[in-house]
Amino acid sequence: MHKILTPIAAILLSSTALAAPPSPTGYDIVEGLTTEVGQRLAGTEAEAHARDWAVMRLKALGFANVHIEPFDMPVWVRGTESAEILAPYPQKLVLAALGNSGATPERGISAEIVGFPSLEALSAAPEAAVKGKIVFVWHRMTATQDGSSYGTYGPIRFAAPTIASKKGAAAILIRSVGTDHHRVPHTGVTDWAKGAKPIPAAALSVPDAEQLERILARGKPVSLHLTLTPRMTGTRQSGNVVAEVPGTDPTTGIVLIGGHLDSWDLGTGAIDDAAGLAITTAAAKSILDGPRPKRTVRLVWFGAEEPGGFGGEAYAKAHGGEKHALTAEADFGGDKVWSFRASFAQPKSALRDTLATRLSLIGVQPLSGEAHGGTDVGPMVQKGTPVIDLEQDGTRYFDIHHTADDTLDKIDPAQLAQAIEAWSIMLRTVVDTDDTLAPLPPRKGEE
Amino acid sequence: MHKILTPIAAILLSSTALAAPPSPTGYDIVEGLTTEVGQRLAGTEAEAHARDWAVMRLKALGFANVHIEPFDMPVWVRGTESAEILAPYPQKLVLAALGNSGATPERGISAEIVGFPSLEALSAAPEAAVKGKIVFVWHRMTATQDGSSYGTYGPIRFAAPTIASKKGAAAILIRSVGTDHHRVPHTGVTDWAKGAKPIPAAALSVPDAEQLERILARGKPVSLHLTLTPRMTGTRQSGNVVAEVPGTDPTTGIVLIGGHLDSWDLGTGAIDDAAGLAITTAAAKSILDGPRPKRTVRLVWFGAEEPGGFGGEAYAKAHGGEKHALTAEADFGGDKVWSFRASFAQPKSALRDTLATRLSLIGVQPLSGEAHGGTDVGPMVQKGTPVIDLEQDGTRYFDIHHTADDTLDKIDPAQLAQAIEAWSIMLRTVVDTDDTLAPLPPRKGEE
Repeated sequence: MHKILTPIAAILLSSTALAAPPSPTGYDIVEGLTTEVGQRLAGTEAEAHARDWAVMRLKALGFANVHIEPFDMPVWVRGTESAEILAPYPQKLVLAALGNSGATPERGISAEIVGFPSLEALSAAPEAAVKGKIVFVWHRMTATQDGSSYGTYGPIRFAAPTIASKKGAAAILIRSVGTDHHRVPHTGVTDWAKGAKPIPAAALSVPDAEQLERILARGKPVSLHLTLTPRMTGTRQSGNVVAEVPGTDPTTGIVLIGGHLDSWDLGTGAIDDAAGLAITTAAAKSILDGPRPKRTVRLVWFGAEEPGGFGGEAYAKAHGGEKHALTAEADFGGDKVWSFRASFAQPKSALRDTLATRLSLIGVQPLSGEAHGGTDVGPMVQKGTPVIDLEQDGTRYFDIHHTADDTLDKIDPAQLAQAIEAWSIMLRTVVDTDDTLAPLPPRKGEE
Repeated sequence: MHKILTPIAAILLSSTALAAPPSPTGYDIVEGLTTEVGQRLAGTEAEAHARDWAVMRLKALGFANVHIEPFDMPVWVRGTESAEILAPYPQKLVLAALGNSGATPERGISAEIVGFPSLEALSAAPEAAVKGKIVFVWHRMTATQDGSSYGTYGPIRFAAPTIASKKGAAAILIRSVGTDHHRVPHTGVTDWAKGAKPIPAAALSVPDAEQLERILARGKPVSLHLTLTPRMTGTRQSGNVVAEVPGTDPTTGIVLIGGHLDSWDLGTGAIDDAAGLAITTAAAKSILDGPRPKRTVRLVWFGAEEPGGFGGEAYAKAHGGEKHALTAEADFGGDKVWSFRASFAQPKSALRDTLATRLSLIGVQPLSGEAHGGTDVGPMVQKGTPVIDLEQDGTRYFDIHHTADDTLDKIDPAQLAQAIEAWSIMLRTVVDTDDTLAPLPPRKGEE
């Protein structure tokens, strides 16, 4: 695809400079990180190993100023986990504890299940219906190209455990917030609101959740034995890995891009988020290998995104005072970019038009609405940094997200190459634009 | 589909009688058995529970002579199982012991990995290359409509463990004999040849096998810690569940059909083989609900197929002396029938032509070559019983086969209904045919 496009792209990019051809950097990074490091849970030795791997690889690629910026964070680790229906139809279920889940005693607990089809139904339930029971919440999440169904159904993971805890539930099981039908549960953090005691909280795989739903539909009381022994291990070190392509004019501000280095512990974090590292690194490499940019590109492989965006917070604390011209994050898998959104101070600008024209060449259309960045660059976006979202196709993202199935084979090299090309075009455009990329007013209350 | 075809089918079936419309019996059986019983490993309490469920359901459907025929068998059960690469890239791998696997000590074993791309490469390896090591055999199995790739790659599971054992290997890991890319390993029996000591033997999920293959390709020595604690529990009881549709003329011989009631322990056995029970039972029910057949239909839900066809052997021992006109088995999932093969004493016959004409109406074409039945009816086929194979589409069968993913959601109700229709047409044709269905010469050495 690149070879066919080059002549056209050459015309359109002639006012600045050509994006360098996509290097093999992208797929190599996903392959190397997932093979030689594997899972890299935030705050663990595996994540530290991943940082060393990152420094080695980023230096070898020729980036400047490669270094680790450490920070501390609380660390949650998985224990044993099992669930078995005791009555009316004895059988084991496959599940995974949610990040920050409380623990059962070593020998587990047995209790009756009370089921709810939605977060709203659980919220509306009287305390007496829930107290001492194991809550089960299911849902009907389906796949969407823009990933918007995660916004609709994600709160079942984020918020339902707190609601169940406040009503006195013994534990909570949710149907995995996922769109596949495999026996691979989807983990992810849950957030305990102030005053909510952490209770055991886990996600059933989708087939197991449907099985439990069918069993409940038989109308007989359902009892379950649940064992979950995760624990908080206290404060540990994580860190961000930083690399740069120095610009010729520091007064024009930094272009901050990146993804996150940590993964959940069940898979090897290929789509979440070795792919994002690959895309942003390959795009930065295309700048490094091309004419020297006006603006500095700062590439960050953020630590500890999954448990709550600790890397992004640490970055904003350390660098929030520096002038940032723009930020963008890749944390939505390795599939193709199909659209983009930009939040600039000016609703209309030559820069926006140029981006639209150049990106449309490879099938990427402009969308209206606000860009958000991602969890890692979110604090900088909140401060008013202009931001571009290159929207990747999320149709199969939540089939794999936060599961043991997040492995290298889920990467489609052709789609990854397209995403790298889109990022390379965007990046070359913004590092050299004459647009001042003035800051926006700070945002409120957005993560 | 049925309503559209009925007028045409009516003309073609007018010489005998119409197949009754497909009843809801099919999907209901898969749903009920997988939900209310779940996994049903041969020789365990779960399989006994499944037999009780079967008797209850078959009686409720109105079949005659519903009863259990018990038999004894040796029982293997899974223990704990884990694998962890120690060097050069420490990480856990997902695997499942093969049926009849030997055990490691409780604390596991650590050894170097020696990898082979095929069974042939392992066979050719000198003993010194294997002795004391953990053998790893991979392969490139891909999906096939007729399931023939299982014939090509299946021996990696059946035979490689014996070869590794005879060369003094400490253990063997194989790439799952499966065509998916999920972290759900494919179990299944391995056969220890005479004189081969059972060693620990397990299947890695396909993504894990590919990961190990990549790591080996780095060229550094790879060491692994393996723990597998399965055990033989001694002799236990299994059994076949038998039900009949009595025919008007016992001298014309029995038509024996069925599938198997036991499943592997990882999934709930929806495609393997609740689907086969559903298809054959719904077809038998169409005979029960139609005009009384000339031949008796004997429907058997065989026990203990997976560990080695114990139910089929017990059946042949008990009933081999009775006159059987024909046999057919459904043990290849719940997807549509696309072709059929028949082994009759006469290579050309009016019966064969009638079957071809009637089945072609619903997209089922005749194929040349021998029919084989399946493991359960295999001993009767060996004795010379005429046999028809209704070939189901196996394209996705080995994505799911013998894994935790073998669950209800993998059943496509529309394809299941087509398979039931094909079986109903075939069964109505053979129960009433004037063809004598003379026995064939006994076969040699076929399972």
